[in-house]
Amino acid sequence: MTGQPALPPPSARTRVRRFHQIASYDPQSVHAILDAMPLCHVGYIHNGTPIVTPTLQWRDGDRIFWHASSASRMIDSVLEQDVCVTVSLYDGLVMARSAFSYNINHRSVMIFGRPEKLSDTEKAEQLRNMVNKTIPGQWDRLRPVTPQELKATTVLGMSITEASAKIRTGPPQDDEADSTFPVWAGVIPVRMQVLPPEPDPHNLPGLEPPAEIASFHIG
Amino acid sequence: MTGQPALPPPSARTRVRRFHQIASYDPQSVHAILDAMPLCHVGYIHNGTPIVTPTLQWRDGDRIFWHASSASRMIDSVLEQDVCVTVSLYDGLVMARSAFSYNINHRSVMIFGRPEKLSDTEKAEQLRNMVNKTIPGQWDRLRPVTPQELKATTVLGMSITEASAKIRTGPPQDDEADSTFPVWAGVIPVRMQVLPPEPDPHNLPGLEPPAEIASFHIG
Ligand SMILES: Cc1cc2nc3c(=O)[nH]c(=O)nc-3n(C[C@H](O)[C@H](O)[C@H](O)COP(=O)(O)OP(=O)(O)OC[C@H]3O[C@@H](n4cnc5c(N)ncnc54)[C@H](O)[C@@H]3O)c2cc1C
Ligand SMILES: Cc1cc2nc3c(=O)[nH]c(=O)nc-3n(C[C@H](O)[C@H](O)[C@H](O)COP(=O)(O)OP(=O)(O)OC[C@H]3O[C@@H](n4cnc5c(N)ncnc54)[C@H](O)[C@@H]3O)c2cc1C
Ligand code: HEM
Ligand code: HEM
Repeated sequence: MTGQPALPPPSARTRVRRFHQIASYDPQSVHAILDAMPLCHVGYIHNGTPIVTPTLQWRDGDRIFWHASSASRMIDSVLEQDVCVTVSLYDGLVMARSAFSYNINHRSVMIFGRPEKLSDTEKAEQLRNMVNKTIPGQWDRLRPVTPQELKATTVLGMSITEASAKIRTGPPQDDEADSTFPVWAGVIPVRMQVLPPEPDPHNLPGLEPPAEIASFHIG
Repeated sequence: MTGQPALPPPSARTRVRRFHQIASYDPQSVHAILDAMPLCHVGYIHNGTPIVTPTLQWRDGDRIFWHASSASRMIDSVLEQDVCVTVSLYDGLVMARSAFSYNINHRSVMIFGRPEKLSDTEKAEQLRNMVNKTIPGQWDRLRPVTPQELKATTVLGMSITEASAKIRTGPPQDDEADSTFPVWAGVIPVRMQVLPPEPDPHNLPGLEPPAEIASFHIG
């Protein structure tokens, strides 16, 4: 019990049917996956065709946000329709004894909802949030943002009310009958690795990266 | 010149408008990204709502494939509509001198098209391909696939004719006026790391993973 408000029961479109035993709908599980992976894929309809756009998302409380050019085709489209935002992590290859039981250890979230364009005040606040959630304190170290830059940028926000998560962990689950089939089974784990920073060759002499980059991680 | 047939010029919906300087349409670039990342996000419309489903894709020549339960809602939906399949890799955080110039080093591909359900013969062949592209030679080491398992599985195939790639590499690109702003700039590279295999605790004694797992990598 963390005191967080419970999500409403899954809606018709959010209820997981396939592999439902690995589904969850509680905010803790959903939020943990969103916080682990900034990359999301936003699905919307444009001229009758579905479009899946890789984009960065960040979370503040029970809303997620993403940013784009104010001139992007996405902006006008998504204000008039429900979108699907999906975040997923590939955590490992699950090698079973039959090809049919092969699987991927994974974490994923699907959120349905209607995005809203943030007001100017909220936009500035959330862009600051985006930067500082990536590298703590970085916003105030950077060349200050200009009014023109803010104007060129739109930030969309969406409530995380209709959301589901699927999480698979652990060894393969072969059929009982296959358990003695003589082939090696197991998991090859995979994760995102952050490498040492590469300074811009044009850096002024003597500049060092902020200590806070040590907290940058994905996964 | 590799002798591969050229893609047709980008269609209206495939032509990159935003950051078009980092776009490419040649099959080599598109294929290299598909081959680097098995995880894709398939966008389709279901009951009027866009759905973005994380799924595994693999490529054979100029087609991509993915598999799902024959009972999945995706199967019926996508045979009657164009879908968007997106593959993307987060290769690094690009820390510029202004927040506006922050970026992500990335590789991504967007493909539009109409998927087709494979015939039984082609399905079996492509599932074998899926397994052997993941771990060379693994299909023949596994408990042989059964007719019921094949029946429960649908494989979709789609031509890679309408495809675009976006690739960003290298240091930040600040505005000239910001080049002397005294803040560290650079890139924090990120990549997928494959960890040592974890044997299933139920493995028969003496079984070892195939040497070919050494070739398993993502990115
Ligand atoms: C890394 C990765 C790789 C995958 N590879 C494959 C693959 O190759 N083949 C395959 O069939 N499936 C794969 N999946 C699972 C896939 O994302 C779907 O969950 C599955 O295909 C069932 O889709 P459906 O629309 O039929 O599900 P349904 O259960 O009918 O979907 C109903 C509702 O459940 C929720 N839901 C469904 N899928 C997810 C999800 N992944 N995360 C969170 N909520 C979800 C949504 O709210 C959805 O509207 C993969 C998932 C991940 C994360
Ligand atoms: C890891 C990652 C993170 C990203 N984060 C953000 C972000 O936070 N904000 C943001 O605005 N953008 C982000 N992008 C870029 C984003 O995917 C879009 O390219 C961009 O938003 C422009 O979208 P659009 O629909 O307006 O483009 P348009 O140029 O109008 O799209 C026209 C056509 O160009 C092609 N195209 C567009 N985008 C891509 C792509 N990514 N890959 C391949 N082909 C493409 C498609 O064929 C599309 O139909 C990110 C991309 C990646 C890979
Ligand atoms: C490299 C090999 C393979 C991998 C990594 C793999 C991975 C996956 C994953 C991640 C899922 C989704 C599970 C979920 O919803 O959480 C899935 C579903 C499925 N796979 Fe595979 N798979 C592989 C090979 C095969 C083969 C060869 C078959 C058939 C012979 C098969 C049949 C199925 C079926 C039928 C489903 C849908 C299950 C359901 O929704 O009820 N898979 N697979
Ligand atoms: C952590 C900080 C940030 C990161 C990692 C980031 C990353 C990105 C990425 C990856 C793109 C897409 C580029 C492409 O299409 O290839 C983008 C676009 C954009 N970003 Fe950011 N961004 C950040 C902060 C900001 C801020 C603070 C602003 C505004 C003040 C901003 C304004 C924009 C605009 C306007 C675009 C669209 C450009 C265009 O399509 O012409 N970004 N950003």
